[in-house]
Parts: sequence; structure tokens; C-alpha cells
Amino acid sequence: MTKELALQPNERLDDLLTHQLHIIQSREVFSFSMDAVLLARFAGIPPKGRILDLCTGNGVIPLLLTTRTKATIDAVEIQPRLADMARRSVAINELEHQIRIIEGDLRTFPADQGYPIYDAITINPPYLPPQAGDQNENQHYAFARHELNGNLDEIVAACSKLVRNGGRVSMVHRPSRLIEIIDAMRKYKLEPKRIRFVHPHAGAEANIVLIEAAKDGKPEVRLLPPLIVYNEERQYNEELMQIYYGDKRPHPGEV
Amino acid sequence: MTKELALQPNERLDDLLTHQLHIIQSREVFSFSMDAVLLARFAGIPPKGRILDLCTGNGVIPLLLTTRTKATIDAVEIQPRLADMARRSVAINELEHQIRIIEGDLRTFPADQGYPIYDAITINPPYLPPQAGDQNENQHYAFARHELNGNLDEIVAACSKLVRNGGRVSMVHRPSRLIEIIDAMRKYKLEPKRIRFVHPHAGAEANIVLIEAAKDGKPEVRLLPPLIVYNEERQYNEELMQIYYGDKRPHPGEV
Repeated sequence: MTKELALQPNERLDDLLTHQLHIIQSREVFSFSMDAVLLARFAGIPPKGRILDLCTGNGVIPLLLTTRTKATIDAVEIQPRLADMARRSVAINELEHQIRIIEGDLRTFPADQGYPIYDAITINPPYLPPQAGDQNENQHYAFARHELNGNLDEIVAACSKLVRNGGRVSMVHRPSRLIEIIDAMRKYKLEPKRIRFVHPHAGAEANIVLIEAAKDGKPEVRLLPPLIVYNEERQYNEELMQIYYGDKRPHPGEV
Repeated sequence: MTKELALQPNERLDDLLTHQLHIIQSREVFSFSMDAVLLARFAGIPPKGRILDLCTGNGVIPLLLTTRTKATIDAVEIQPRLADMARRSVAINELEHQIRIIEGDLRTFPADQGYPIYDAITINPPYLPPQAGDQNENQHYAFARHELNGNLDEIVAACSKLVRNGGRVSMVHRPSRLIEIIDAMRKYKLEPKRIRFVHPHAGAEANIVLIEAAKDGKPEVRLLPPLIVYNEERQYNEELMQIYYGDKRPHPGEV
């Protein structure tokens, strides 16, 4: 299918600025955030095997992961409209052999599959409790921002059920909920192993946390160097430029 | 007592470089670390009331806290040799009206006192499990570095028993044990509210964590800006210089 034919009204085709990847976005329903891009670089993933991306939205994380791994990637999205966008983006990039978009509910998806088969899981879940937020926002954004289809405990439980022993679960979230995240992870035998905080600038509190846990791992965690987004001239720092605009290394590594 | 008469063999009198404070140290038994200085500036403490410092060593934290508060400070140390050094340092600085050095075991101290009376607690505990480390080190250093007189769970339990509801417990520790610390704090109803990571330089993993919890607080935590110790010229950063060598502000604040 040609790229133009794949677009529906009010959709646009954005350049992911790396490896000639493109993605369908729409102001009306969903656009990916920096958080997803950072998670796609931070996550510990195997060079091959099976990866799962939950709350995939328009599929930005699986698309970016293909630049780092030959693993097959299953990606689950509960909203039919977004799953359809993601599926068309996969087709546009001719990545059907590597990425499978699944319209489904992460809370029942484990039961569908029956056993833990994934070497690594990535997830950029809604950050806010159901009650928080603007009642006027449209349903697509409400589902992306609020825990309306599974709370943190249910999300972490699903990750734990689906990842193999020793496998990795990588999540991006708000630092204000760090303690809840750690509590939920340990409840479901996901041991935090690497944590990185993202600060808008050097003197600011963190507004994003990246956290990677190992199923049944032993308790010892590494706190990575802070990721500072903007320099003193209010421009992206060198590391952010590398993450966003690709780097020259033959085997792009983790954040 | 004159400063010279207070010293015993192999002890020296060091300048704390702020508010004309001095402290007795000894290479044979104990010298304070940067960690203690950072905790003394980070900790949330009231302008008056009652503060408790556990694992006080030679008393560096209570001495430094007197520059930030009029509260009375009880300070507990299990090693008689260090408690004696701390008591003499308090006398040298003529701070007997504000600091009381108590030789005792934090695990039984709560029972001695009988009820939670402290508005804030500070603690720079041993960082290493009993089994880790060099068997040849002298006993004073072994007690300071290893959990030989109470493990993390017992230490946090003691803090929780001794602090009033809503009161603050501030701890400095190794980031590798962050998850255990958070687990223990929540077990004893100490909710982490402020966390700050200290990195030797901007590109390095954190090697110190400062964490402040509130007794029976609600779960929401702030991740403060990273504290970077050395700049690119391998000199102390401006913030470290301020912390160590005093600042000009009339009411020195928190880290």
C-alpha cells in the first residue's frame, strides 16, 4: 500500500527521523511523546527472541525497537482506532514480519496466551489515576492518560505473568508514583535493576522515570546518570539529540 | 575545658568550616564522610522542637544541624569510644544546652524512652550487610560500615517507633539498596516524600542517596535535582562548595 493511501482523514504521516521509519499520527486521537522515545532506547531487550509492548498506542515503541533488535514484537492496544493506526504504520514501514499489532486488553491477554513467553516487555502506561484530570478531554486522550483500563497494580501483574523468569520489564512513568511502582513490581516478583531519572534541566526535579525490572531478580539496583533534557541555552542536550535524531554507532545501545 | 585538653592520643581537632564549629576526629577510630555533611543539609528539620540523630558516630550531624535549628538534639551512638569523642566535641563547641550524646543501642532506645517524641530523625547508618567487607578492618570501622548492631529493617523500625505522626525521618545510604530501604520504610509506615541522588560527576551512576520520609504520609514522592559532586575540571561544584564551606544566606536552607 502506498503511504498516502494508508492515511485516513485528519491523520498525518510523521518521520521518526531514524532508519527511514514513519508513523501515522493524529491530533484528534494520539501522538507519541518523548517518554515513549526514551523508553524505546532505555529498555533492556534481547538481540533476538520475543518482545511484548503493552499500551502500545500508535505503535511508536515497537517501531523504534526494530532499530535495536531482530526479536519479534507483539504490541497490544485496547483502543480499536489506535490499534488500526499502529497496524497501518507497521504496513507502511514493511515490518509485518517483525511486529504484530494485537487489539486487546492487557488484563485478559495473559489468559489468552496461557504462559509466559516473552523475553522482555516494554510499557508506557497511563500515568494518572482514574479520578484525576480534565473531564472534558476526548475519550482517546482520556484512555491514554488515565488508568481507565487497568490500574498500576493490574498492569504490573500482567507484565509479571507474561515475562519469563530472568526476563526484563521496562516502564516509563511519573516519578511522583515511583514508590507505588516499586511496591507493585516487588509484589509481582519484578525486581528493579536499573532506574534513570529524566530532568527537564539540570536544576529541576525529575519529571520522567525509566525503570527496568528483572523477573525473580536479586535485590540490587543501579541508579543511572541523570538524563538532562535541555542545556543552559534551552536547547536539547547532546544525548537527547542522539536519541531523537539517530546516532552513528553501528549497534545503537541503550540510553 | 580548653580545646587542647579535650584531645586524647591520636586524636585531632578539625574545623567544620562553618559557624566556628570544631570536631574531634581520629584516623584510628572514626572520621566523618561527605555523606553525613550532605544529610545534615538535606534533612527536613523543624526550627524548634526535638530531633534525634541515630548512629551519630563522632557527632558530626548534630553539630552541623545546630546551624539550621534551635531544636534540641539527642544523638545516639553504640560505641563508647565514639560517644565519648562526640560528647567532648559538644563540650568544645559549648553546645551542651542543645545536644545530648547518648551511649546506647538504637534497637532498645525506643523502649527506654517509651513513646515517640521526636519531630525529626536523621540517620547515616552502616551501608553494608554483616557478611560483606574486609575481615581485617578494625572493630571501630567495622561497626561504622557493617550492619553488626542492627540491620536495615531494625534501624527503620526504630526510626518509626521514635518519630511522631507526620514527623520526618531522613537517611543517607547507598543507591544499590534503594529498593530495600523503600520496602522497609513502607513496612513501618514511613512514606518516602523527597529523594535526591548524588552522582560523583554528571555522567556517572549515583553513589549516594538522600531520602526523607514522613510518618503516615500520603504516597507521593518528589525526585529532587541531581547533586553532581565534581565539575568537568574535577573540582567541587558550586553547590558542594556552598554545602561544605558555608554560605552567606542568613537562614541556611536544605540541600
